[in-house]
Amino acid sequence: MSQERLIEIETDILSKNDRYAHANRTVLSDRQIFAINLVSSPGSGKTTLLCKTIEALGDAPLGVIEGDQQTANDADRIRATGAPAVQVNTGKGCHLDGHMVGHAMEHLDLPKGSLLFIENVGNLVCPAAFDLGEDGKVAILSVTEGEDKPLKYPDMFTAARLAILNKTDLAPHCDVDLDLYEANLRRVNPTIEILRVSAKTGEGMADWVAWLKSNLAMKAVGVAAQ
Amino acid sequence: MSQERLIEIETDILSKNDRYAHANRTVLSDRQIFAINLVSSPGSGKTTLLCKTIEALGDAPLGVIEGDQQTANDADRIRATGAPAVQVNTGKGCHLDGHMVGHAMEHLDLPKGSLLFIENVGNLVCPAAFDLGEDGKVAILSVTEGEDKPLKYPDMFTAARLAILNKTDLAPHCDVDLDLYEANLRRVNPTIEILRVSAKTGEGMADWVAWLKSNLAMKAVGVAAQ
Repeated sequence: MSQERLIEIETDILSKNDRYAHANRTVLSDRQIFAINLVSSPGSGKTTLLCKTIEALGDAPLGVIEGDQQTANDADRIRATGAPAVQVNTGKGCHLDGHMVGHAMEHLDLPKGSLLFIENVGNLVCPAAFDLGEDGKVAILSVTEGEDKPLKYPDMFTAARLAILNKTDLAPHCDVDLDLYEANLRRVNPTIEILRVSAKTGEGMADWVAWLKSNLAMKAVGVAAQ
Repeated sequence: MSQERLIEIETDILSKNDRYAHANRTVLSDRQIFAINLVSSPGSGKTTLLCKTIEALGDAPLGVIEGDQQTANDADRIRATGAPAVQVNTGKGCHLDGHMVGHAMEHLDLPKGSLLFIENVGNLVCPAAFDLGEDGKVAILSVTEGEDKPLKYPDMFTAARLAILNKTDLAPHCDVDLDLYEANLRRVNPTIEILRVSAKTGEGMADWVAWLKSNLAMKAVGVAAQ
C-alpha cells in the first residue's frame, strides 16, 4: 500500500472521528458539562488520582468514562467511591474515539453542570490524535518516568492544556529534577498549565480541585475552555 | 469506512510488515545475532537498563536500535557507553516496524555473534502487533506502574518471552506487591520468564546478563529461541 493511500485512510478515519467529537461537544455544551480527557502512560496513577479527586469534590455531580484494552478494574474502583462510571474495553485498540465516548455519555446521562472525566487508554502516542469532544486534555506524568518524556512524545504535550506531575512523593527516591520537567513541558508547549500533585500525600490536590471548579464555573457562563 | 474494510487494511499492513520481519530474521540467523525487542510504557527505565547492561557485558559485540517519536537523546546515551547505536524517529508513529529495523540493521552492520537490542517506542499497545524479526520481546515494567498492568494490556505480555520488573529499589516506597505482579504476568502468559531488576542498585543484573549470554550461546549453536 502506498504512503499516499495510507495518509488518505488516516485522514478518513480522523475526519469521521471529528464528526462524532463535534456531536459530543454539542451535547456537553448544551448541558454545561465540563469534560476532560485524561491521557498518560500506563501506570501514571490516573485512577488513584481520580478516586481522590472524587472524594475531594464531595457531592458535585460527575461521571467517569474508563478506557482500557481489557478488564473493568478501573470502573469498579470508581464505582466504589459512589460515582457513576462506564468502562469501555478497546480490545486491540490503543485509544478511545469519539464514537465510543458518545455511547458512554448516553449511558451516563449526566445532569446539567456536571464534571465528566474521560480516562483514556494508557498511551502517550495515539490518543493525542483523537478529539473526543472534551474541553481539554490533561496529561498526567508520573515523576518516575523522567524529565525527557515531553521532548520524546511532543504531540501529546502540545495537545494538552494542563500537565500534572503526579507521584511527587516518589521524587526524592528517583533523582528527578521537577524544574527541568516543567522547563521541558514548556519547550514543547509554552502555554501549558502545570500542577505538581501527589494523590498519596495530598500535595497539590487543592489546586487541582480548584482548577476543575473554576473551569466548570466558566463553562456554566459560556466561556469556551478551548 | 466499514469495519470489514478496516480489518482488510490492517491485515495488509501487518502482512507487509511480516515480509520485512522475515527478511530481518534471515539476516540475524545467518550472522548468529541474538536480537531482542525491548517493549514497555514510556519511562520504565529501558535506556538506563541498557546502558548498565552494556557496561556489564564488557567487550561483547553488540549494537542498539533506538525508537522514539522525537529526539536522539537515547542513541546519544547509548553511544556515550562506546556502543554503536542508530536512532529511528517515528514522528507521528507509535511503534517500530520491520522496514525501519531492516534499514537500521544495515547501518549498524553488526559482526557475527553479536547481541542486538531494539528499544521500541514506549507504548504498551501497538508494538505488540509488529514483528521486527527479533528472537524475542522483553517487556519491561517499572514497579511503580502497578500490579494490574499485565491484565489491562494483555497482548504485550502474551507476546513477550521475558518480563523485567524494573526499578525494584522504588518498591518499598509505592505499596506494590511484586508477587502479585508476577502472578498477574503468569495469568496472561503462563510460560513467561520473569526477572526482578534494579538498574540503580544492581539487583538482578547478573541474572539478566546471564540470560542474554545463554540465549546468545544457543543462537550460535542454532537452537531457535522462538
